[in-house]
Amino acid sequence: MSTESVEFRFLDVPDDHFAEHEEAYDELAAEVRRLVDLTIRSEVDPGAVRAATAQVRELNATLAGRVKDGPAGVTFNGTGCSWNWGNAVVGARNAIAPPLAIEHLEPGRARAEVELGAAYEGPPGMVHGGVSALLLDHLMGETASNGFTRVTFTGTLTLRYVAPLPLGPVALSARITEDDGRKVTVAASIGPAGPDGGAAVEATGLFIVPSWAR
Amino acid sequence: MSTESVEFRFLDVPDDHFAEHEEAYDELAAEVRRLVDLTIRSEVDPGAVRAATAQVRELNATLAGRVKDGPAGVTFNGTGCSWNWGNAVVGARNAIAPPLAIEHLEPGRARAEVELGAAYEGPPGMVHGGVSALLLDHLMGETASNGFTRVTFTGTLTLRYVAPLPLGPVALSARITEDDGRKVTVAASIGPAGPDGGAAVEATGLFIVPSWAR
Repeated sequence: MSTESVEFRFLDVPDDHFAEHEEAYDELAAEVRRLVDLTIRSEVDPGAVRAATAQVRELNATLAGRVKDGPAGVTFNGTGCSWNWGNAVVGARNAIAPPLAIEHLEPGRARAEVELGAAYEGPPGMVHGGVSALLLDHLMGETASNGFTRVTFTGTLTLRYVAPLPLGPVALSARITEDDGRKVTVAASIGPAGPDGGAAVEATGLFIVPSWAR
Repeated sequence: MSTESVEFRFLDVPDDHFAEHEEAYDELAAEVRRLVDLTIRSEVDPGAVRAATAQVRELNATLAGRVKDGPAGVTFNGTGCSWNWGNAVVGARNAIAPPLAIEHLEPGRARAEVELGAAYEGPPGMVHGGVSALLLDHLMGETASNGFTRVTFTGTLTLRYVAPLPLGPVALSARITEDDGRKVTVAASIGPAGPDGGAAVEATGLFIVPSWAR
């Protein structure tokens, strides 16, 4: 695939400037995740909902007072710190992201556990099959990156849906099965958390290390 | 795959009761989508963010005053109306869902266009590869359902990432390529919207019609 258009942005700011901002915004995102859940599950009457909508609109006007032009991207500074806060799977400031906290067990092996609530529903009571694909794709990409030592892009991804996955705590794991430095094959699965969980979705992915990153 | 645990819920309520609730909650969800975006992109100072967080916390307490036990599921009533408001891709009340508005062109062929903003980011400035998988999985499942005339479940899904997909307006299309009434094969793609868009991700899926739904 073509990867020329991917950009990483350098910002000449001290770590603690980011730290204070990130802490405040991360807490906001955590509260917004609860709001996303309650917007689906609340049963308060329409009048109360309209009042809530007006309040969110006001909040949005405040937050829009000073706003980044474009998406978050990935930024880094002179000390080597980098931030990925907007990512749809792991971004702490992205209320769409659960967010997934990925544990890199060793190079080429990673896992994660996360609670998936009402916002991730597909079939009634079940995790949306596409949400499993979303989380697996990300975990597998990070696994292919060998603990962030190289950039990789998804080439192909194959998912086998073997059992329904109930909403609730889920566990994911991934490991590199083949690696020639240019093409990396990763096997992964997602299933209910716990010792008897088993796999609900099994995945195989081929990840590409772009020539400029080798 | 096993599909015994999927439930659809009957509610004996008139259509207009739902209509008023849904209109109010849909507007709230639309405003919450803007809040999700601004939580990623806002650059107001930490003090203002902390004040916003406190306000969202209060809103959440109000909405939690009366709340459904469990996820939204799919409900239907005696007139045959059904609601899928919590779905992670098409749910109007789910701020995680763009939501995707799917156009069924004819049985076995469907398309959709949607604007994907900062909340759907993976590589800087690009749609997360897993988000493309999420949206394609849903569109392909609905396409396999032949305009909702049958229930289908994803069996396998294969995605080929052929080009990066910039954030912004995207177009998706899907069509049934094989169908024996039990197994349905669907081909689909997602790419930038517009005549010169081309495909960024190509997908093939095998969908299963469960025996109880044939």
